[in-house]
Amino acid sequence: MNDVLRNTWYVAAWSTELAPGAVLARRLLDEPVVLWRDAQGQPVALADRCPHRFAPLSMGRLQDGGASIECPYHGLRFDAQGQCAHNPHGDGSIPKAAVVRRYPVVERHNLLWLWMGDPARADVAALPDFSFLDPAEYAVGSGHMVVAGHYELETDNILDLSHIEFLHPLFASEAVRRGQVTCEQQGETVWCKRVMREDHQVPDFLRQAFNVPEGPLDRWLDVRWNAPANMALWAGGHASGADPATAFVSQQAHCFTPETATSTHYFFALAFPRAMGPMAEQLAAENVAAVKVVFEREDQPMIEAVEQRMRGHDLWSLKPVLLPGDAAAVRARRILQARIAAEAQG
Amino acid sequence: MNDVLRNTWYVAAWSTELAPGAVLARRLLDEPVVLWRDAQGQPVALADRCPHRFAPLSMGRLQDGGASIECPYHGLRFDAQGQCAHNPHGDGSIPKAAVVRRYPVVERHNLLWLWMGDPARADVAALPDFSFLDPAEYAVGSGHMVVAGHYELETDNILDLSHIEFLHPLFASEAVRRGQVTCEQQGETVWCKRVMREDHQVPDFLRQAFNVPEGPLDRWLDVRWNAPANMALWAGGHASGADPATAFVSQQAHCFTPETATSTHYFFALAFPRAMGPMAEQLAAENVAAVKVVFEREDQPMIEAVEQRMRGHDLWSLKPVLLPGDAAAVRARRILQARIAAEAQG
Amino acid sequence: MNDVLRNTWYVAAWSTELAPGAVLARRLLDEPVVLWRDAQGQPVALADRCPHRFAPLSMGRLQDGGASIECPYHGLRFDAQGQCAHNPHGDGSIPKAAVVRRYPVVERHNLLWLWMGDPARADVAALPDFSFLDPAEYAVGSGHMVVAGHYELETDNILDLSHIEFLHPLFASEAVRRGQVTCEQQGETVWCKRVMREDHQVPDFLRQAFNVPEGPLDRWLDVRWNAPANMALWAGGHASGADPATAFVSQQAHCFTPETATSTHYFFALAFPRAMGPMAEQLAAENVAAVKVVFEREDQPMIEAVEQRMRGHDLWSLKPVLLPGDAAAVRARRILQARIAAEAQG
Repeated sequence: MNDVLRNTWYVAAWSTELAPGAVLARRLLDEPVVLWRDAQGQPVALADRCPHRFAPLSMGRLQDGGASIECPYHGLRFDAQGQCAHNPHGDGSIPKAAVVRRYPVVERHNLLWLWMGDPARADVAALPDFSFLDPAEYAVGSGHMVVAGHYELETDNILDLSHIEFLHPLFASEAVRRGQVTCEQQGETVWCKRVMREDHQVPDFLRQAFNVPEGPLDRWLDVRWNAPANMALWAGGHASGADPATAFVSQQAHCFTPETATSTHYFFALAFPRAMGPMAEQLAAENVAAVKVVFEREDQPMIEAVEQRMRGHDLWSLKPVLLPGDAAAVRARRILQARIAAEAQG
Repeated sequence: MNDVLRNTWYVAAWSTELAPGAVLARRLLDEPVVLWRDAQGQPVALADRCPHRFAPLSMGRLQDGGASIECPYHGLRFDAQGQCAHNPHGDGSIPKAAVVRRYPVVERHNLLWLWMGDPARADVAALPDFSFLDPAEYAVGSGHMVVAGHYELETDNILDLSHIEFLHPLFASEAVRRGQVTCEQQGETVWCKRVMREDHQVPDFLRQAFNVPEGPLDRWLDVRWNAPANMALWAGGHASGADPATAFVSQQAHCFTPETATSTHYFFALAFPRAMGPMAEQLAAENVAAVKVVFEREDQPMIEAVEQRMRGHDLWSLKPVLLPGDAAAVRARRILQARIAAEAQG
Repeated sequence: MNDVLRNTWYVAAWSTELAPGAVLARRLLDEPVVLWRDAQGQPVALADRCPHRFAPLSMGRLQDGGASIECPYHGLRFDAQGQCAHNPHGDGSIPKAAVVRRYPVVERHNLLWLWMGDPARADVAALPDFSFLDPAEYAVGSGHMVVAGHYELETDNILDLSHIEFLHPLFASEAVRRGQVTCEQQGETVWCKRVMREDHQVPDFLRQAFNVPEGPLDRWLDVRWNAPANMALWAGGHASGADPATAFVSQQAHCFTPETATSTHYFFALAFPRAMGPMAEQLAAENVAAVKVVFEREDQPMIEAVEQRMRGHDLWSLKPVLLPGDAAAVRARRILQARIAAEAQG
């Protein structure tokens, strides 16, 4: 896949998707990747193609508790470094070229982060902060789906929440659209903050989930973007005029990784502090099930329809009419574009 | 879609497909088009792509009884001229570029005709005459299907009815093939006329439908073609030797519009004069149901198989062996080719 | 289809697939071919495309007991030479160009062999020897499947049986891998011979099928390859130390013909001498049913996964790591490559 940022962290999977002993095959940036856990439980990510006869290693079996994976076709074994560790044929000597590409992978905040660029430049400090997904402190409801559209269309979608009123009838309220929006950039982080004061149209499910009394609310929706397409969203509020200390906050993750040039892995989650008590788990489970239905029935068909209408053309080449709500998405696209261009120059 | 006539009328839909309040999405000449009726019931046709984020307008809702259509993604509204009439965001000002292409569309003879070329050249006088589809005077049985083949293969099919004997066992009779065929050109209209005298093999259903006595018939099949691919067919006959005033005539429409370069909308109909009494409605309904089965089971698989065998190549590049029955189809292809070439030169 | 050997015999079908009166359509080397038997029962193979309007002749009907086939669209008839023999239109004269390509086809050893190159060079003496498929002397269990992979991947698969241990759990035994392998070339025939001595891990089904006593076996697997991709396999053995005259031998055919550049017809068979008595028929039927399951569930997914991983690239361009077991397959690929190159030079 061309024209994509390499030296960055992409979400490859939820931690929970990779159980000990499991082998996970996933196409990322149009490259086949196999993931598993080694004997210490550490995640491993290799190119999912044996260098002998190009069989997918992910069709094979783990050996020695995850120390290596055995090719399902002729039995070569590759260790966590991608080095051939065993050749069952002939005198057993290991051909020099029997190596597969290893991808640096880090497990943090309930996510497996993959580095698909130069391994020497993989920098854990560059991981965006999704500490609200840490299962020790938060009950997390998470999901994964694949959408047949370019991943930047997903960025556009999350960074312009003015679409909620039109695309999501359940949440239909003018308040979000009428909210005051500010777009901020801090280094290469983009923030889109939206404040809705004296909102009378709060959906019932929000009131129930957060035990909010009748009457108008002061609400906000804050979205943080980091390249390539990882977003955190804080949806908060309190009764208008009430002490801000009484505010509720729902924390969400919306992380996108290209599967191919025209399809995208969508990793989404909602987190509730375990300090809320047993309700946190219930809220996480119920809410992620609810938003998944919305993503599948409303956002996904829209993203896929837009992808079809754009026919693979770059957004700018189609000269889109821009509205005020596009400010954050345009800024994110420009930062990403600049980083890709810088990378191309070396 | 290249190499296609632009300044001409294409059938976009049957009038009856576009009920008041309905929104119809259709791909025509490989362009997405949205159709609906305005408050006065007049048909409207716009490019089915919002200029903001390229959502299909056809996924949206009509507003004000059809005065505009609202984009389903961020709520811009477009009127019957394709002009943005409402922007719900920010201060509500309308961006200058917020316009979508409008296609001239005319409702005539039970059909919605679309002009996909220069709107200034749209000329209602150029509409071919399908007055026998006028619902006031005729009971019309109509249908629509999509065939995975180039639209000119459909022209070839209708203009050479010698295929009936071989492709349509139900109508199997040597008479059609043995009939006397003449091909005439009047301006840019092509006629293929076929006369079968003293035909003893008239199918029973024809005799029943038209109350024709036993014994040989003098029959004819006249096909009229107009660019790009709109054909009318008159199938008539009377007892051999009888007064021509006793003749029955069945009138058919076979209109084709490219969906893509390799698929075609097929609009077909049979019309019977209301002067026949209540039988007209029954004949229309029964006969269109019968021919639809034939088109789906016999013509469609053949057209699609030919498309596959030709693999996207132009007919002439494959050097077809021509038979006498091809005369009309070849003439129609040449007229169309000349018009496309003339249009390319401006 | 480019880069493929033309002047050679390809298996087009099993003899039993072409019953008298049947019409068989098959894509071979990405060309549509129609096969049937003439009045004398001799197989006929023509290009499956009428030169008039490009309809598939295979959708038509045989005439005069197979003397010709009638085009299903307009009724032209073509004889076993591909010559138009009947034109039902106009004065019935036959257009000079009304000819379709005829492919030389020979029925031998239960197989229909097709020559897709220069007919003048078709040489029956070049047919490989599959006399063990002759139904007079052998009970043959045969099958056909289509695999979505390049045909040379199938050659690689059969010529390197060291995959059996890894891909086929039912046959899991170290013996095959540990066997002594020799690769021989005789002219343009490649042999890969594998000997396993004192094998204690003989699968039960083999012992049952061949009535082999308990105890270790001396076994062998001999594979013979001929261009383009036709292989015979002899699997034999006897109790270690026993008289070689007591050996059993199972004979197999694995013949591959490109359907397209990325899919392959797989013709497979097992043969047992009728001299074995009624058991021969039973063994043939049971064993071919058993191996078909293995081919479908184990080999086919692997070949198709490898095809996907290679993405249409040539094997050598991907610089495969070679193992000792690849020797025969590499030799076969080189012979084929040399013949294709020679053919390209004329």
